[in-house]
Amino acid sequence: MRQLQLIAHGEPSEVIELNTVSEPALGQEDVLISMEAAPMNPSDFLFVRGMYGIRPAFPSSVGAEGVGRVAKIGSKVDVALRGKRVLILPTYEQGTWADEVVAPVRNLVPMSDETDPLQLSMIGINPATAYLLLNRYVSLMPGDWIGQTAANAAMGQYIIALAKLAGVKTLNVVRREEAAEQVRRWGGDRVVLQGDNLHKDVEEALDGKKLSLVLDAVGGPPVGELAKSLKPGGSIVVYALQSGQFPAISPGDLIYRGLSLHGFWLINWIRNAPRTEIEEIYQKLGDLVADGSLSAAVEHVYPLAQFKEAFRQSLKSNRSGKILFQFGATDQTDRG
Amino acid sequence: MRQLQLIAHGEPSEVIELNTVSEPALGQEDVLISMEAAPMNPSDFLFVRGMYGIRPAFPSSVGAEGVGRVAKIGSKVDVALRGKRVLILPTYEQGTWADEVVAPVRNLVPMSDETDPLQLSMIGINPATAYLLLNRYVSLMPGDWIGQTAANAAMGQYIIALAKLAGVKTLNVVRREEAAEQVRRWGGDRVVLQGDNLHKDVEEALDGKKLSLVLDAVGGPPVGELAKSLKPGGSIVVYALQSGQFPAISPGDLIYRGLSLHGFWLINWIRNAPRTEIEEIYQKLGDLVADGSLSAAVEHVYPLAQFKEAFRQSLKSNRSGKILFQFGATDQTDRG
Repeated sequence: MRQLQLIAHGEPSEVIELNTVSEPALGQEDVLISMEAAPMNPSDFLFVRGMYGIRPAFPSSVGAEGVGRVAKIGSKVDVALRGKRVLILPTYEQGTWADEVVAPVRNLVPMSDETDPLQLSMIGINPATAYLLLNRYVSLMPGDWIGQTAANAAMGQYIIALAKLAGVKTLNVVRREEAAEQVRRWGGDRVVLQGDNLHKDVEEALDGKKLSLVLDAVGGPPVGELAKSLKPGGSIVVYALQSGQFPAISPGDLIYRGLSLHGFWLINWIRNAPRTEIEEIYQKLGDLVADGSLSAAVEHVYPLAQFKEAFRQSLKSNRSGKILFQFGATDQTDRG
Repeated sequence: MRQLQLIAHGEPSEVIELNTVSEPALGQEDVLISMEAAPMNPSDFLFVRGMYGIRPAFPSSVGAEGVGRVAKIGSKVDVALRGKRVLILPTYEQGTWADEVVAPVRNLVPMSDETDPLQLSMIGINPATAYLLLNRYVSLMPGDWIGQTAANAAMGQYIIALAKLAGVKTLNVVRREEAAEQVRRWGGDRVVLQGDNLHKDVEEALDGKKLSLVLDAVGGPPVGELAKSLKPGGSIVVYALQSGQFPAISPGDLIYRGLSLHGFWLINWIRNAPRTEIEEIYQKLGDLVADGSLSAAVEHVYPLAQFKEAFRQSLKSNRSGKILFQFGATDQTDRG
């Protein structure tokens, strides 16, 4: 099997090699998955650079999420799983940037054969995070408003889509006008550019309404400006800190308006949630992908061999969509 | 009636006057309270300086908490209240630094006649805050550990006492060795000095245990060092920011350990909690004062006329206890 391997922490194209490794013996509760698709995420590059919440021993397989078909099963695995399409849970226990992956069954959730594997391969991290951000902290009702930063990222698109399905309105903060257009196309209800008068612009866009929840991936000042428009006692959930800065919430807002700031990391949910809840949520998300309610823009797919080009594309700031590895059929197409 | 009045925001002794004002007509649901005792709190001085969450119109009465006896009642007030001792809720709708106070009955909770009025006068803000901090965010079990900063303040003493009653252990951070001794006398289970190796010292003091809750009144770095010893998913509650700095929590701790940071302001609770909950909690706290379980050290009491001296004492950093106004009997004694 061919596998991207991380040999040290550093720049992705310098510390990752494509190696052919011998197929490991399957444990009793393991399966061998013939991969179909595996996306690249910002968290993968944090992992590669040694800045993530999990640090591997070298050499390490790499890539958090993906889907594939079960090609072989261990002796204690339900035979019904053979040939099935499965989602690999992003536990970082198995790298998905490989044409074949060995994983324990507990890290898999069966998915429909009828659905686009590219879209399915992306539900492990972002849609699950978006779903939990929208459902764990505040009881949102139809007509409620939420605010989010970095709204033009794939996460932003999923948040907008899931909010829409729940009848919840989104106020979206982005940095550039092109990003604003993209977010409007995705159905964002209001879009505000991150300028010097962000709070005032947000207030104008909300026209007297207040936010019930603020979701942040940036840190620093923008989330603090959004927080000023939160209802008293409202919640801010931070799931990434692209700026590297702690969210700059006003101390007065925090105390006098009784705000709460929550850190969210999907891995904690996967590690601690009941198995039934994990399956239920991923199957629900899979159904939403199947009926077209949920998708992320795809900019380009690459075969594994072109990983350096894939990384280069993936690390560009002005992408129009996600970058993924596609295996099997698409490898053929790309070669044709 | 004689009343301290705030005429502008500024230094307490410069912007507060002792004035004789004519007794206002009682509204149908008002009572006139002959005051017994009213303490000085840091929040009063924030209010005086214009740095509090409520800003008054001038001239304004001042002083948030206190107890007294009902001397007169409005036409719609239950006659059973006449002559009763009542706690004035710290709503900032009536200033308590006055020998007589007019307040609506909804801002009063009846208290026992048998209990020390000085101690009762101090339960409005600190013990209620301590109780809510310990009960609203985490389900603490006997044997659990909590951490707190500024542990030698009156709030720290109440937190230690209420934690002790619940079988909860306290790790207390203070700045000076004398403060550490005081906290040990109050029954603090562990006391750590706020030095350069705070996290290491906290870990040593905890000896492998983890904190279930961190309570902070300081902001800045100490709360972040305590937060490192929180259980995953643990809560930090901030009820004041003496340093003026936002709590310096590590972003990695916030996200990867799924921590939550909550701002707490008592006024939000008083405004929003059901009346029955408010009465129940204050009566419970009154009972704990009555049986001696709950008290704050008192350094000195003053008659209203000596307010400038009272402020001077109150604003000193190294006090051994609280400063209060005492009315009636004590005024006589002081004059005698």
